[in-house]
Amino acid sequence: MEATATLKELAELVGGSVVGDGALSIGNVAPIDTAGQGDITFVANAKYLSRLQTTKASAVIVAPGVDAPGLAMLVCRNPYLAFAKILTHFRVRKAPPKGVMAGAWVDPSATLGDNVTIYPGCYVAENVVIGSGTVLHPGVVLYANVRIGEDCLLHAGVVVREECVLGNRVIVQPSAVIGSDGFGFAPDGTTYYKIPQVGIVVVEDDVEIGAASCIDRAAMGETRIRRGAKLDNLVQIGHNVSIGEDTVLAGQVGIAGSTVIGNHCTFGGQAGTAGHIKIGDNVMVGGRGGIAGDTEPNQVLSGAPAIPHKEWLKASMGFARLPEMRKELLRLKRQIDEFERLLKER
Amino acid sequence: MEATATLKELAELVGGSVVGDGALSIGNVAPIDTAGQGDITFVANAKYLSRLQTTKASAVIVAPGVDAPGLAMLVCRNPYLAFAKILTHFRVRKAPPKGVMAGAWVDPSATLGDNVTIYPGCYVAENVVIGSGTVLHPGVVLYANVRIGEDCLLHAGVVVREECVLGNRVIVQPSAVIGSDGFGFAPDGTTYYKIPQVGIVVVEDDVEIGAASCIDRAAMGETRIRRGAKLDNLVQIGHNVSIGEDTVLAGQVGIAGSTVIGNHCTFGGQAGTAGHIKIGDNVMVGGRGGIAGDTEPNQVLSGAPAIPHKEWLKASMGFARLPEMRKELLRLKRQIDEFERLLKER
Amino acid sequence: MEATATLKELAELVGGSVVGDGALSIGNVAPIDTAGQGDITFVANAKYLSRLQTTKASAVIVAPGVDAPGLAMLVCRNPYLAFAKILTHFRVRKAPPKGVMAGAWVDPSATLGDNVTIYPGCYVAENVVIGSGTVLHPGVVLYANVRIGEDCLLHAGVVVREECVLGNRVIVQPSAVIGSDGFGFAPDGTTYYKIPQVGIVVVEDDVEIGAASCIDRAAMGETRIRRGAKLDNLVQIGHNVSIGEDTVLAGQVGIAGSTVIGNHCTFGGQAGTAGHIKIGDNVMVGGRGGIAGDTEPNQVLSGAPAIPHKEWLKASMGFARLPEMRKELLRLKRQIDEFERLLKER
Repeated sequence: MEATATLKELAELVGGSVVGDGALSIGNVAPIDTAGQGDITFVANAKYLSRLQTTKASAVIVAPGVDAPGLAMLVCRNPYLAFAKILTHFRVRKAPPKGVMAGAWVDPSATLGDNVTIYPGCYVAENVVIGSGTVLHPGVVLYANVRIGEDCLLHAGVVVREECVLGNRVIVQPSAVIGSDGFGFAPDGTTYYKIPQVGIVVVEDDVEIGAASCIDRAAMGETRIRRGAKLDNLVQIGHNVSIGEDTVLAGQVGIAGSTVIGNHCTFGGQAGTAGHIKIGDNVMVGGRGGIAGDTEPNQVLSGAPAIPHKEWLKASMGFARLPEMRKELLRLKRQIDEFERLLKER
Repeated sequence: MEATATLKELAELVGGSVVGDGALSIGNVAPIDTAGQGDITFVANAKYLSRLQTTKASAVIVAPGVDAPGLAMLVCRNPYLAFAKILTHFRVRKAPPKGVMAGAWVDPSATLGDNVTIYPGCYVAENVVIGSGTVLHPGVVLYANVRIGEDCLLHAGVVVREECVLGNRVIVQPSAVIGSDGFGFAPDGTTYYKIPQVGIVVVEDDVEIGAASCIDRAAMGETRIRRGAKLDNLVQIGHNVSIGEDTVLAGQVGIAGSTVIGNHCTFGGQAGTAGHIKIGDNVMVGGRGGIAGDTEPNQVLSGAPAIPHKEWLKASMGFARLPEMRKELLRLKRQIDEFERLLKER
Repeated sequence: MEATATLKELAELVGGSVVGDGALSIGNVAPIDTAGQGDITFVANAKYLSRLQTTKASAVIVAPGVDAPGLAMLVCRNPYLAFAKILTHFRVRKAPPKGVMAGAWVDPSATLGDNVTIYPGCYVAENVVIGSGTVLHPGVVLYANVRIGEDCLLHAGVVVREECVLGNRVIVQPSAVIGSDGFGFAPDGTTYYKIPQVGIVVVEDDVEIGAASCIDRAAMGETRIRRGAKLDNLVQIGHNVSIGEDTVLAGQVGIAGSTVIGNHCTFGGQAGTAGHIKIGDNVMVGGRGGIAGDTEPNQVLSGAPAIPHKEWLKASMGFARLPEMRKELLRLKRQIDEFERLLKER
């Protein structure tokens, strides 16, 4: 799968500079402990710098100011990003398009771009539009009137329900569901009457959606996942939610209906929010954090209900000491009662 | 998709009355801000009543006592329910049945009712029974001896394992799993021996199950989801659980094995329960609430372990102030030590 | 499905001894309350011993020292394990292999063992290797170069992505995903650049994976689920995680990337861990527990951040009493201020 490049070519690829032999032939990227001859490795964390002395790699990607005696260096401001780009260069190859394979069902009314691949077991319904270069792995189901952009990658078992729209370069991991009915019921005495969910989901460009994540269609209007947002596995997005640009939701996060999350937020694993709230830009929520109300931008929050992360750390320590605090409180109470008695006596 | 109706016809549909022109032609339902000529809109929340002055809708569904100058009104006791019914009237059309489509595998021993639709990529095993009017979207898999009632809607990728039973009008969102093995293992030294899960799942009439939700089959006997219960996405139901009638479980709720939940309960998102407990009717559990033991009916609970919701709100405020409380406690302790010293001196 | 055995034969099967008529013919296992003539039942919990007086079973599996007047007894040290083995004997029958069924797509380069069953709607890609006796239920998708061992059972809709490896006797419940991309992105200003996830997942022998659980492939190297581990439904395993032998993760547990969990640990439902931490052997984490840092072996932990379970129980009681504690603290403060005043006056 790999092809070689010179260190100089890699430096040009990532906008960095070479210290050492730019003509060095590099064939792969590998972690610092397992890299060998012909590999380039990387140090994104200063903690691991000492391992440069023992690595068997031929070259290393480092930030300015790092020295790696005996190793050729690719120096750049963001070694982690450079690593990702070089890894992509060596290891990501798009397979040649296979067209509509035997065993795929594609409705004649569907419109397919150039160079698509539609594997066996896929179902593409009436009036679906699929952009050029898009790949549907086996068992993908697109309901009627779905529109998928260019160069998307839908892994096996993904379901996109009717009318939903995906932009370009959207990646969807296996078994994710886009456009399931929102959870809306009107009480009718003790039973519930289903509210038809007639809205859609719009997934903008460069979004990634994790395995078995579920994005509900809007009751009316749209649920929207904005440009560049990244959703991990088993994430739940309620109806009419909006997830901001470049916002990152880790595994098992749940966002309740009609909540609007700003740009460039980060939610740790198993975090969640109430419905019908608004969260500003650049909010970072710790793992398991629970946001119950409108939230100002530029904050780091933890706990449920969430409070500023530093306060939560202290309060959590306090929580563990609650039994001791209660005892202390009781002891003080007894002492005070004793004083009271003494004061009265005098 | 829409068809028109007069305002009077809609009022009859929902058991309400008209104030204004009953002959008005209505063609759709729309939210108050985006509604236009020929649309009916609704106000379920008094907070938004002021928007009636600016809406471009032709008519509005309101509760008795509301005035909407210049708009025709459909007056009824439960506007939200009326909205749901009118939306259903305008927007829900059942497609004509398509029968068993090419590319679906149906075992010859299966019994199919009238007017079923079985899309390509479905697999219907030996002795399955499917009621009339039921629709299986692409990729639905029914294992041997499954029984599905009438007018059910199983979305793409749903799996129902052997022997499980679904009632009538059951809706299952994409990729949900019914009848997976319960999680049962007998310790054998340090390893585990699988306990065969030979029971089934019974899903009663009018239940809705969300996308990627998983309902485990019983070890022996049955797991039962009772009439009218509504489960949101990514919900986990352990073996031998019973979910009561009209009980509502929001996204990512988890109910551990053998727990019995009463009728008309409501669980917020990411809530959960221990196994082998009994929860009474009309219990409401807040988002992320965790129920650890048997629970009396008619309560509102939050937190984990759950306590009455109002107490939890106060305790949560106390949690945030724990560091300050600890400081205060220390200060009082010092003061008291000082008194003690003073008292001794005298 | 059942076949009869004598009580003596069953005792030999499980390494126990008979008290009573060893020639008794037994045809099934049933719970104590519903067992009838010809059934064997079991009492694993001393709490239910009294029911032995009313059961209609013909025989009972008991631990040494239990007496069941009027019933034949199969006496053994681990009645629960014996129950599981006898239930397996009576109720688990492997269907005869069906080979590659019509409607399954198997690439000619794939290598299939003897006695496999591949149902319609499966897709087996290039160079896949499948061991003898393995069953793929409908809609299973195996990407290129996947290797599956012998006697595995992959239920409907399971997806295993490229290069991943499963051992022998692995059971995967419906819709689980093995080998989805790990969640790795390098920040590039405010946007994120995808880090190719070029590692794999290795699932060792005798592992069971629950419905809709997701196991991400490693960024580089491998994510590993070790021998005998059991994962319940909707479990999330991040990239480069290692789950120890015989470790048990209940429903909706989430393990963040690069975390290493020891052998024979047990995680309750909805528990989770931070990433990049190490958890020792024999750690038990309560439901909803959250482990934030490296963790010594042989502990029982609860809460988030997790603390020793017994301390957490006490602290949780303290949490509920926080409002009362705050009042008490205020009251003491007032009393002390009053003393201060009095002391000054004197």
